[in-house]
Amino acid sequence: MSRFKQAAELLLNADDILILTHRRPDGDTTGSAGALCRALRQAGKEAYIYKNPEITPRYAPLIVPMAPPEAFEPRFVVTTDIADLTLFPDNAAQFTKKVDLVIDHHRSSSEYGKVSLVLPEFAACGEIVWEVICEMGIPLTKDIAQALYIAVSTDTGCFRYSNTTAHSHLAAAACLDTGIDGGELNRALFETKSRARFEIERFVFENMEFFDENRIALVTITADAREKTGATMDDLDSIAALPRQIEGVEIGVTLTENRDGTVKASVRTTKEVDASKICALEGGGGHLRAAGATICGTREEARERMFKAARAVYYGA
Amino acid sequence: MSRFKQAAELLLNADDILILTHRRPDGDTTGSAGALCRALRQAGKEAYIYKNPEITPRYAPLIVPMAPPEAFEPRFVVTTDIADLTLFPDNAAQFTKKVDLVIDHHRSSSEYGKVSLVLPEFAACGEIVWEVICEMGIPLTKDIAQALYIAVSTDTGCFRYSNTTAHSHLAAAACLDTGIDGGELNRALFETKSRARFEIERFVFENMEFFDENRIALVTITADAREKTGATMDDLDSIAALPRQIEGVEIGVTLTENRDGTVKASVRTTKEVDASKICALEGGGGHLRAAGATICGTREEARERMFKAARAVYYGA
Repeated sequence: MSRFKQAAELLLNADDILILTHRRPDGDTTGSAGALCRALRQAGKEAYIYKNPEITPRYAPLIVPMAPPEAFEPRFVVTTDIADLTLFPDNAAQFTKKVDLVIDHHRSSSEYGKVSLVLPEFAACGEIVWEVICEMGIPLTKDIAQALYIAVSTDTGCFRYSNTTAHSHLAAAACLDTGIDGGELNRALFETKSRARFEIERFVFENMEFFDENRIALVTITADAREKTGATMDDLDSIAALPRQIEGVEIGVTLTENRDGTVKASVRTTKEVDASKICALEGGGGHLRAAGATICGTREEARERMFKAARAVYYGA
Repeated sequence: MSRFKQAAELLLNADDILILTHRRPDGDTTGSAGALCRALRQAGKEAYIYKNPEITPRYAPLIVPMAPPEAFEPRFVVTTDIADLTLFPDNAAQFTKKVDLVIDHHRSSSEYGKVSLVLPEFAACGEIVWEVICEMGIPLTKDIAQALYIAVSTDTGCFRYSNTTAHSHLAAAACLDTGIDGGELNRALFETKSRARFEIERFVFENMEFFDENRIALVTITADAREKTGATMDDLDSIAALPRQIEGVEIGVTLTENRDGTVKASVRTTKEVDASKICALEGGGGHLRAAGATICGTREEARERMFKAARAVYYGA
């Protein structure tokens, strides 16, 4: 029996189903939950998505309308895209030992439910949910397709990243076949910048410094700038990718000054330079091409130290 | 007989094949030509891609290695993504009356070849080439898949635009199935900014003006800025999309000052505002959400006039 089929049968035999999403909810956890919940209702089930206290306006339409009534007592609990118990939202502690089915794609996923459908070969949890919905024999409606599309497109950077597989495209093809407008969804998800995000980008563009024949690009986002622009963590997300996108830049360093006397450093590199080595010199770590560190000191000290670390690794000193 | 089959049979019966690409070659014309040429060679044909004098470094690897030898006399001429004869490169005039097969997806495509395979329902010409290659029974190699992938991903904005269909995703899935790294290709195509492009974006960020509670955003790229940054037309491409990407902006106006006393205006709008109406007030035109006009006058005059035109249409004056 395929693993999709096992999950599908569990769900088809269940009722009064509650679906949980993870902390700092993104498009994959909310899109997966949103698609699964709508599909289960399509099949005549009573199904809800648990309230997530950190939901942002962008993904709220996927899960908020599916919140359970006060008196609801779930008899079957599913999690989508939640790798471990520390990622349960604060209000979901009572369910940590009651999970019947874990649907996830994280390599680091821990076994916390009765049954796990964890498949790290998929770029998005939404791709697994798509297979389970197909296996249950539930046809995709536009509502389901829209949620699935958002799950897959956000986790693959709109099919741009290397994690995108043929399967990701097949899932997207099935979604578009229902007649939804992917372009309209993508504009809302990827193209619209908040005014605060624009202002913080403007600051980054104005203040970026280049060293060593443009091989190293460095920018410091001051606490003042963050406050003046009103940039949230959502707005700062992925700003760290900007310096390295410039042709010729091999190491991009983004420093974010906090009010507590610390500075967050985010390092992005091209293939040839190990970002985690650079950050390790300042007590941090991460991956080959994306790493971070937290530095205690002023922003000038942090700038000096990270620049030194970058050059030390780059020149093998 | 399907139209793909007709084209496939023509090609299978031909030899000494020459493929042409269009002026200002983009990813779709070069990717389509590159994929078709490699597939035909795979099938044992002698096939070449005609030199395109305007080829840029980005797309050169797709067509330059397939250039014909001096003495080559084609017996079958194919065009990919060329909508009409005015789009033939300057050096290809001798072929305008000798085209055997037109493969294209432009709605405006004119009938200039003996046989036309023009299918406007496809987002990229590369999708049609994919079908023809499949119809010929030629398996996708990595080389072919890479060229096809570039054709489809560039014309769909990496699957982001509304023109993307289920078929675009199916074509991409087939390409990735050969084992190519789409992410690596996309990084080169979409994520890397030239230093000149970075500098021109920096200029745009610094000089953008907002009016009417941010509903109208306007920026003037001076001739000085263009020259100082060394920005080419390639670098300026799609800069016009920046203002409208900001939340709340309904009309984005980008003015580019030329040295000949004219100013190019590019207008991008949200659904509610008709960009072509705005540009029509200054003798230009275009589409509902993207239009342009050329204004004779100083950049200050152009700014004044386009701002007035934008407000006139916005407020229905």
